Amino acid sequence: MEIICVGNELLIGKTLNTNENWLAKRATSLGISLKRISTVGDNVHEIKKVVREALNRKPRFVIMTGGLGPTHDDKTSAGVAEALNRKLVVDDRALSMVKAKYEAHLRAGRIEMIELTPARVKMATIPEEAMLMPNPVGTAPGLRLEIDGCLLIVLPGVPSEMKAIFEASVTPLMTEISGVLKFFEKSIYVSGVMESALAPLIDRVMQDNPNVYIKSHPKGEEKKLYIELHLSTKAPNSKIAEGHLKKAGSQILNLIKEDA
Amino acid sequence: MEIICVGNELLIGKTLNTNENWLAKRATSLGISLKRISTVGDNVHEIKKVVREALNRKPRFVIMTGGLGPTHDDKTSAGVAEALNRKLVVDDRALSMVKAKYEAHLRAGRIEMIELTPARVKMATIPEEAMLMPNPVGTAPGLRLEIDGCLLIVLPGVPSEMKAIFEASVTPLMTEISGVLKFFEKSIYVSGVMESALAPLIDRVMQDNPNVYIKSHPKGEEKKLYIELHLSTKAPNSKIAEGHLKKAGSQILNLIKEDA
Repeated sequence: MEIICVGNELLIGKTLNTNENWLAKRATSLGISLKRISTVGDNVHEIKKVVREALNRKPRFVIMTGGLGPTHDDKTSAGVAEALNRKLVVDDRALSMVKAKYEAHLRAGRIEMIELTPARVKMATIPEEAMLMPNPVGTAPGLRLEIDGCLLIVLPGVPSEMKAIFEASVTPLMTEISGVLKFFEKSIYVSGVMESALAPLIDRVMQDNPNVYIKSHPKGEEKKLYIELHLSTKAPNSKIAEGHLKKAGSQILNLIKEDA
Repeated sequence: MEIICVGNELLIGKTLNTNENWLAKRATSLGISLKRISTVGDNVHEIKKVVREALNRKPRFVIMTGGLGPTHDDKTSAGVAEALNRKLVVDDRALSMVKAKYEAHLRAGRIEMIELTPARVKMATIPEEAMLMPNPVGTAPGLRLEIDGCLLIVLPGVPSEMKAIFEASVTPLMTEISGVLKFFEKSIYVSGVMESALAPLIDRVMQDNPNVYIKSHPKGEEKKLYIELHLSTKAPNSKIAEGHLKKAGSQILNLIKEDA
């Protein structure tokens, strides 16, 4: 799987990209392996390039987020259409979804009349033959396109909308595809030992436990340094996973004691 | 400029990528335009591919972060060496820097003897002819390589080390290259108006103020929605920037009032 994030606010450092982190965590927990994350600005040409590059690497999923709204700089639909050589069309079903949202705003008294302005029609202007995913909390629907065995999923950038569409429409797809192995993890914290001294111990434990991956993360301030040892594994259930992680965790702790 | 982040912890969603955000903000404030951020895992082949792809797009800077430490999964030097078809060599100057760090640990009583284990020599094993950037707070030095007019900068992933090397060794390079235009920004918050209604007003203000970029960001929860209007500009100094931002800001607020 790959993630593509679209938004100038990410490239100028105005916005911390919590979306990529949330998507990475969710996909991993569903048993999907994420290989790359790419972020580009609100630019049709850049979006076209990054989508084509991702599709050329043949991932099972590409999840895009950002650039589906009503403003001038919401350019994801245009970029995706160019990448796939598809027309950008006003989609009737999408337009009904957008209209239904403004009807709800009208009933709630937030607007006085429904006007399908160009900005609003824009949210229903999508690459030809894209499938729609309803947006439970916002206006612009999510998009789903199938290209040579890759599912290209396009979600809004507003976190609440992205998450709601993901949970309703993407989670079931991933669960179906990911197979029986799920991701499990555990952290152990050690202090008074240097990362460079841990390195050969980690190597040994990983050799003895081929289904456990261990990564060390130095943490804390200069005076109070400690190291997080992050152990992860894929297994069909939590009982088997716990067995793997416990065995590797005990071994690394014993080796650290012996080494001290 | 492009950023490349290396680390499995980013791809499994364990770690929120604050490094990319910090680097994006710093580079932007120094007048450098960031075009793309890529994240890959601790994998030599993936690192090689992403570095080559970035260099092919001919940016002035590529800043990498992560994967310079002593453990098995610190693979950035190996990946960069492969990308550039350079040998990976134990560098004498780098080894002196690493040794000096452990001498300091010895003096501080944190270790009992200096042993240049393979894990420690690894931090001095770098692509041939890379320039070194001292690490004021950690062990592994940063790397600087010049490839066909692109400066490829390689920094550790530990945030405090990354920031310290950046400020000491990268900031001066960027200041020298970026020219006289700096980045300035301002936010205006509006409520009671929909993003789709703002879109045509933003278009008009951007047409009238070609040096100001405006982007709307929906914020808040469903019951208390508001919109942040983020205005940005590049200018030689803050006085000129403030003039541009104030003019555009007043115009958009007036248009919103007229439209209401």
